[in-house]
Parts: sequence; C-alpha cells; structure tokens
Amino acid sequence: MEKLVILGCGSALPASGRHPTAQVIEHNGKYFLIDCGEGTQSRLRENSLSFDKITHIFISHLHGDHYLGLPGLISSMQLLGRTRELNIYGPPGLWEILSLQFRLSNSQISFELKFHAVEEERCLLDTERITVRSIQLNHRIKCFGFLLQEKEKPRRINGEAVKNAGVPHFFMENLRRGEDFINEKGEQIPNFQLTKNSKKSHTYAFCSDNRIKKDFHKKLEGVTVLYHESTFLHNELERAKRTFHTTAQEAAELALEVNPDLLILSHYSARYHDVRPLLEEAKILFPKVILAEEKLVVNFSKIY
Amino acid sequence: MEKLVILGCGSALPASGRHPTAQVIEHNGKYFLIDCGEGTQSRLRENSLSFDKITHIFISHLHGDHYLGLPGLISSMQLLGRTRELNIYGPPGLWEILSLQFRLSNSQISFELKFHAVEEERCLLDTERITVRSIQLNHRIKCFGFLLQEKEKPRRINGEAVKNAGVPHFFMENLRRGEDFINEKGEQIPNFQLTKNSKKSHTYAFCSDNRIKKDFHKKLEGVTVLYHESTFLHNELERAKRTFHTTAQEAAELALEVNPDLLILSHYSARYHDVRPLLEEAKILFPKVILAEEKLVVNFSKIY
Repeated sequence: MEKLVILGCGSALPASGRHPTAQVIEHNGKYFLIDCGEGTQSRLRENSLSFDKITHIFISHLHGDHYLGLPGLISSMQLLGRTRELNIYGPPGLWEILSLQFRLSNSQISFELKFHAVEEERCLLDTERITVRSIQLNHRIKCFGFLLQEKEKPRRINGEAVKNAGVPHFFMENLRRGEDFINEKGEQIPNFQLTKNSKKSHTYAFCSDNRIKKDFHKKLEGVTVLYHESTFLHNELERAKRTFHTTAQEAAELALEVNPDLLILSHYSARYHDVRPLLEEAKILFPKVILAEEKLVVNFSKIY
Repeated sequence: MEKLVILGCGSALPASGRHPTAQVIEHNGKYFLIDCGEGTQSRLRENSLSFDKITHIFISHLHGDHYLGLPGLISSMQLLGRTRELNIYGPPGLWEILSLQFRLSNSQISFELKFHAVEEERCLLDTERITVRSIQLNHRIKCFGFLLQEKEKPRRINGEAVKNAGVPHFFMENLRRGEDFINEKGEQIPNFQLTKNSKKSHTYAFCSDNRIKKDFHKKLEGVTVLYHESTFLHNELERAKRTFHTTAQEAAELALEVNPDLLILSHYSARYHDVRPLLEEAKILFPKVILAEEKLVVNFSKIY
C-alpha cells in the first residue's frame, strides 16, 4: 500500500466543506476505493485520481452516505469507455439497487463488472502482495469494515555489497526472497550481508460506522493504521449509543488496546464545525492520532 | 414565479466546475426543484437555498445525471427533522428505486412523502397561482419536460388614485380582481383608473433531454422562458441524433417557432470546456438567448 487519500469523512448530514465517506488506497499502482458517498466522482477528479485505475470497490453498508455515489461513478466509467474489469464488494442489497438502476436507465455496462456479496467475515481478496478481509462492525444495519494486510515485502538489495560479492543479476530475486549466495569459490555469503531489511508491511483497518463491542480489538490484531469513526465527543455518549456510533474517547480506548502506529479519526457529526476538540479528546489517551480531512494523503512509508 | 436558480447544467459525464442537471424555481416563497443530479444537496447549500422550502420535486427521467441526488436529499431532509409534506413527480421506476433504498437502509421517513407517477402528458399541479404540466420529450428512455404556467396575476393598486377616489381598504381585493368602484355619490369609477396593469404572467418550459420532433413547438405555445438542452454544436448533428439530444442550432430553430422572451441553453457535453461557441451558434438565429451556468439566477420580473 503506497498511500491513503481521504475523499470524504463527514457523516450522513453534509456540512459545508465536508463530504460523505469515501477514500482511496493506492496499492501497486492501482486504486482500491472504500465506500463511495454522493459526489465521490467529483472528489476523485479534484484529487486527480483516475477512474480507470480503480480496480476494486469496497462498500461497508447501505446507509446513503456510504454508497450513493456509486451508480454515478459506474455510469461515468462506462461513458469514458472503460474496458478494465471492476470488482465491487458490498451487501447483497447493493447489487439489487444497482441492477434496478441499470435496468430502468436502460444502461449497458460494456466492461466486466463483478459483484461479490459480503455477508460475513471472510477473506475477500488474496493477491501476491495483499489480503483484504471483511470484519463485522456493530451498526444499525449490517455493516462491515475492511482489513487490508500487506504480505511480507521482499528484502532490499544492498547495491554496494552485491557488487563486491560479484552476485550475478539473475540471482537478485533469490536474494530478495532471503536466500544466501554461494560464490564461484564455493563460499556461502549470508543473505543479511547482501540485503537490507524489507520495508514494513502495513495492515490498514477501515472501521466506519461502528459502535465498538467488547473484544472488538481482537479483530484488529497487528493493525498498523487504524481508521475509525468518531462521530461524537464523549459528552454525547448516549447519542453515540443510540445511533450506533463511537466517541473520540472510545476510538482512542480502542487504539490503546490495538496499539497501531497511527489512529485516524473520522465521520464527524455535522454539529462540529470545528473538529479539533475530537482530536484533543482522543490525544489524551492515544497521542499517535490525526484527524481525517478531505484531501488528506497518508503515505504508508512515512508512518512509524 | 420569482426566480430560476441553476444548480447544475452539465450532461451525464461530469466536467470540472460543471454539475449534473438540477434547478430551483422559486414560486410564492416556496421552491420547486426540477431534476436532482448527484450532489444537488451540496449545490442547494452553496446557493443558500433551504431544503425545507422545497415542496415539490419534478424528475424528468431515470438517467442518473437527472435523479441520483434525490435519495441523499430526502435522507438529509429527514435528518434535519422535516415535518412539511413533500411531493415528488417522476417516472414510476423512481419510486421503485427510492422504496428499495429506504427498505435496505432501514430508513423511516417521518414527513409525508407523496409520490405522483408521471406516465403521460397531464396536469400535475393546479394551484391558485400556477399550473404544472408534463410534456413528452423524445429521448432514449421515457422522458418528460415540465411546463410551469402562471395564472393571470391580480391588477396592481394605484396608491395615488385610490386615495383620491376614497376607496375603502376592504375594497382593494375587488379592485385587484378588476372590479369597478362605486363611490358614496353613486359614481362608477372604472377599474383601469384605480389600478395598474398586473405583472406579466410567465410560462416556463423545462426541456431536457430531448431530440426535437416535428411539431414539438406546438406543445410550447405561450412559453415566455424556454430552457432547452443543447448538448452539442451542430457539427455534431449525427451524434446528437444517435444520442437523442439537440444541437444549439436546433434549440434556436425551436425558439424561432415558439418565440419566447428568453431561450436558455444547457446540458452541455463534457467535450466543451468553453461553451461560448454554443451561444454564438444559437444567437445567429435567435438573439434572445443566454447560457445556463451553475449559480445563474434568472429573475422572471426582469425578462421582457
């Protein structure tokens, strides 16, 4: 995962300058789009993110602020002449809605659109470099978060050392995999003398919307970047409970148990024109915290 | 009708700075919303137009750029605690889509939401001051335009004259209706000496999307303000025919037959970064023409 770009991090009621949930994970030159609130296609343009690079879309649940931008985005992809396959993961009802809309607008989708129903916790995607799993959240309607786990990355070649040891070019992949090198004299040179440690593999958790249940942190073991909703300040705890949301303090309490390198707060109630108090509340318990905001870019390689 | 506010006038593929079709007619202190493309609720906010004042919504057809903003707008009205009745006029399929979305998001709408299916040309609304009729357009899927016709307005009191003639206050409404006044001496003072002509009654036609058919102008008799799509320049006539759209020249030819006080071009293809050539093309045939653009406000009282 190279970076996370926040397109929107408001909650259901739009506030000025704030947009409903949508975000892009850039991974291996492609984009994973997570949630797709109304206006997401405009946000993608504003952030110069090509529609065509989106290969996978993950939708958490069927509250409008998490998916209403999807039919328009698909329609624009079609108008732009897309040919690349598109994979959509979401509640079965999402496909009901999209199919009805396609039928009523007499739309022909000319690229391969594969819908994958998410109805339980399972592995959704498993590639050479990453796995994506659904994790059950606790909300008014069925809702899933997503856990994106990078696999161990190849070790990095130490240019100087391989030159001195005379390692031939064809052996570099073996070095990246951790093998030792045996030179022409039959001497075994240990891998660690020829390579540097691989870059950190990150695990990113997207959790919105969620009323945190006991033991929820166990689902997040190993998470390095935790994106969690914090709709309210803790003085609105009763409202948070009633609406199946989380307070900033509770998000920080969760982070204390998971201990990620970074906690990202989000999904702010429209009542907060200034969201800094949410940050302050979380910081008391968990200092490695930032606020999501529109156009925020988080580079995974810069998080430690 | 006091004014028309353009919220969006692009076509299906969003272009930078351009939004999909939506517009508000302010009438008698309330708003009629015509079409509701994605992002309309953000546009309403940008133009400081209160959601609560929207009493009637008219949707032309089920291409996404004309209705995808509606579910989000209704959801926001609900979250804002609306109690006022809302009337929606549109294709029967629109209600299918909305009902499915409400059901899957487990939404309870607490205000009265009345859906009126538009399946033919008919009178949709008839109040003391205005009628709204659907008019059949010619598009790839079933599509209706809307004709908003103001009834004759009351005559305006001539303050000086009624004072001189000693007309009592209670008689003013009779004067506005055109009655003569008989004074205490039994003299009949003709209405025209006590009143001024009423303000002009406008008829506004909203026509998007439409491949103009022969005799279409007959549906627009008496129209004073004609809003008509002009997706393409005339050098794209073949494309306009294929996609069931209109060229700027054709919109002007229609205006020549209808002879409104004002023609408003709109629904520009995303290929035109600069839309002025569309205006130039129309102007040659019909000079009383302007370009719709986001945030344009047309005051009906200033059109002659």
